Amino acid sequence: MEKIAYVNGSFVPLSEAKVSVLDRGFLFADGIYEVAAVLDGKLIDNASHLARLERSVGEIRLELPETIARIQEIQKELVARNELVNGMVYLEVTRGADTGRDFAFPKGVRPTLVMFTSEKDIVGAPSAKTGINVITVPDIRWERRDIKSVALLAQVLAKQAAAEAGAGEAWMIQDGKVTEGGSSSAFILTQDDVIVTRQNGSEILPGCTRKAVVALAEERQLRVEERAFSIEEALAAKEAFITSASVFVQAVVAIDGKKVGNGKPGPMADRLREIYVEFAKATAV
Amino acid sequence: MEKIAYVNGSFVPLSEAKVSVLDRGFLFADGIYEVAAVLDGKLIDNASHLARLERSVGEIRLELPETIARIQEIQKELVARNELVNGMVYLEVTRGADTGRDFAFPKGVRPTLVMFTSEKDIVGAPSAKTGINVITVPDIRWERRDIKSVALLAQVLAKQAAAEAGAGEAWMIQDGKVTEGGSSSAFILTQDDVIVTRQNGSEILPGCTRKAVVALAEERQLRVEERAFSIEEALAAKEAFITSASVFVQAVVAIDGKKVGNGKPGPMADRLREIYVEFAKATAV
Repeated sequence: MEKIAYVNGSFVPLSEAKVSVLDRGFLFADGIYEVAAVLDGKLIDNASHLARLERSVGEIRLELPETIARIQEIQKELVARNELVNGMVYLEVTRGADTGRDFAFPKGVRPTLVMFTSEKDIVGAPSAKTGINVITVPDIRWERRDIKSVALLAQVLAKQAAAEAGAGEAWMIQDGKVTEGGSSSAFILTQDDVIVTRQNGSEILPGCTRKAVVALAEERQLRVEERAFSIEEALAAKEAFITSASVFVQAVVAIDGKKVGNGKPGPMADRLREIYVEFAKATAV
Repeated sequence: MEKIAYVNGSFVPLSEAKVSVLDRGFLFADGIYEVAAVLDGKLIDNASHLARLERSVGEIRLELPETIARIQEIQKELVARNELVNGMVYLEVTRGADTGRDFAFPKGVRPTLVMFTSEKDIVGAPSAKTGINVITVPDIRWERRDIKSVALLAQVLAKQAAAEAGAGEAWMIQDGKVTEGGSSSAFILTQDDVIVTRQNGSEILPGCTRKAVVALAEERQLRVEERAFSIEEALAAKEAFITSASVFVQAVVAIDGKKVGNGKPGPMADRLREIYVEFAKATAV
């Protein structure tokens, strides 16, 4: 069965899902995206993703072409039409296609809304058992990383470098500290059992899964500190892990070829993963 | 007559010129662009633009889907099909559309090549006589501005701020110095008649028109210094101006509402503009 995508009001075969070459997403990266996980046909933590979508578009003054409620309806219809059981729904909104190419915002142009799905067994992914290696790269991105824009070329280059090194993610380093992964939030568990992840701000994306994991950990009286950490600290830690909508919680077992802890996924990453999956299933819509 | 665009081997009406929603230009800003001016139906300084295109794609390891010679043929055919006399040819190459969305480079995917034209009387533009105002904004872009990528959201926001302020360009400021304009290179003429523009490096795009103007000025024994300058220095200068493929040389008569020189286009900007137009026409292809 060919996958179905959503483009500006229509459900179309993915191979026919197209946008104008004048679309500002294509010309200027003038767009925002979100990726929500799907488990058992239901959307995971979607209210959090849609709240972040609203925040991101607000920061660049892009008006959503549909209400948040309607966007969720479309997400659900797309999941149903694709008979998607486990995977992700990708959503992108751009400032639309004007009649020409001018940097300033166009007037009277309807924003573009695109969605498509992909299949992935996030809960049963083999890397959940084995953990992943990460490499480090300089963080060369712009200064508004809190905006989830499609201007992702720096992340593409970082994650390509990781792929070539046989690693599953690239941790980006600025001023000697980890900001985040190319498409995930970075965590460590210190020797005295403190879960550490960088505080939100313009230096990182406010991760939805990060936010949920921090809240779930705190509810369970686990100690959490939101602050920057260095690679030296990560290598001296008990555990390291990443969070994202497409991996949930994922142990990091080596950084730049050096073992973290005993080089195997640790109990905290496993526990937080279980807690997150439980939360995800319980709150899925 | 509806305009004709070029998309991956086909010349199609602009309204039908589309790319897949999976195109990496649309999903990741994983693409490079160039804009070449057209005067009297001929391409201006195009070898310089195509050399920069080759450099940019090389920096992100994107292989052009056509030879440089063939790309110029397509540009020319597009100019002819659109009966374009004066204006610009826009060209974008992306890492193509894979079957899904994965940050790392896809394998076996043909890059996307898109072109379209726009009409503009660059030589006779009214702002050539009046000059433009510029505003200043913080330079929040990524660290590889020498790559002419379509990850232009910071420039969109800068130029939108300029438009709202009634200004024609935004000069971006980093560490107290001007880097460049949102889509142009920044110049001043000091009180002792030195033409100053920032040296090339990862902080700015190596402007094609900038390069030509510097070379033309030096050929005429004008004094040129390639170094960073501050807004204070610009306001104390005799003249200020910008260069780009779509304005050639354009006087700046005010910065953040403060007059530069006597608040009118100065003789050096006028002279360099004339010299550039002469060069452009003489070397057009």
